[in-house]
Amino acid sequence: MPRPSLKEQLLVAGLETFHRRGFNATSVQDITDAAGAPKGSFYNHFESKEALAVEAVHRYQEKGRARLAILRETRLAPLRRLRKYFETLVGLVVEAEFNSGCLLGNFASELSGQSPAVREAVAGAFELWSDEIARVIGEAQQGGAVPSGASPKALADFALEAWEGAQMRARAAKDRAPLDLFLKLTFAKILG
Amino acid sequence: MPRPSLKEQLLVAGLETFHRRGFNATSVQDITDAAGAPKGSFYNHFESKEALAVEAVHRYQEKGRARLAILRETRLAPLRRLRKYFETLVGLVVEAEFNSGCLLGNFASELSGQSPAVREAVAGAFELWSDEIARVIGEAQQGGAVPSGASPKALADFALEAWEGAQMRARAAKDRAPLDLFLKLTFAKILG
Repeated sequence: MPRPSLKEQLLVAGLETFHRRGFNATSVQDITDAAGAPKGSFYNHFESKEALAVEAVHRYQEKGRARLAILRETRLAPLRRLRKYFETLVGLVVEAEFNSGCLLGNFASELSGQSPAVREAVAGAFELWSDEIARVIGEAQQGGAVPSGASPKALADFALEAWEGAQMRARAAKDRAPLDLFLKLTFAKILG
Repeated sequence: MPRPSLKEQLLVAGLETFHRRGFNATSVQDITDAAGAPKGSFYNHFESKEALAVEAVHRYQEKGRARLAILRETRLAPLRRLRKYFETLVGLVVEAEFNSGCLLGNFASELSGQSPAVREAVAGAFELWSDEIARVIGEAQQGGAVPSGASPKALADFALEAWEGAQMRARAAKDRAPLDLFLKLTFAKILG
């Protein structure tokens, strides 16, 4: 396998560092140090730390998209797939010991007022994520497993926002209880 | 009225600046500048920027507590009070043009991994906030307006987390739609 390019190494290191520490607590030097690259090399590849943050959002989104494959396992009922998907996400958050949360939520909180470019990348990522959740909720509604009072997109948006809030609360409490409550009440109430 | 003490001026300026820009994007000098105070005066009153952040969480919590009075207006039905309360919060977020969000959510995202002291202050503030919401949901359950399947505290936690996520998404999208969806589906689904 060829060695990853320096740009790729900086992107991977930037994503990891932003995710763990946030944007403003991370310096360009933190990123070049983490990538094992000379500091001066950064600006050959990225115009600014902000430009790297936008690319980090896109990379994070691609990684998230791979996990969405569960939602298309049509041998399972739609709600079963959706539960399996969120159970996987809960497992990842617990495994990370509540240390990093969701990069989209973190950037939305930290940078919405500071960087229009990051804010727009985050908003776009949420939109596509919610479209994927809406598709499986729509299938569940067609099969009669979810009441049809609210649109699949509205239910997907609301569930995703509840998920983001639950993660945030779990990080503050260093406790998985909000994640378990999310699983329980999303399926009993939002989709019930 | 006596002039506020320098400590009080620093606390007010710190809370406002942290809320608008976040913790790591704010320097001690930003706070002393905003308070019109000499930079050197800061450490006479606060041990560190982190210590000020903990006090800012407590002050933010006190200000939030004043708004909770709506929840005790017993001439209104419990769910009517709760809706009025969240409508007030939505109005504040929209009025602020999605610029600052919720300090508790922002700090939970930005500082949970960085500052145990801030994390614990935030977790405590969420706990008390959720207790207040749970009390009015409990009243609504007793009156039969909310189904009694889930405990008032679980429903309050879930609603608050959905609220935090909705605010975060509204900031990313610069759009009130997630807040309106929160109002609609919290009462139709979580408490319906």
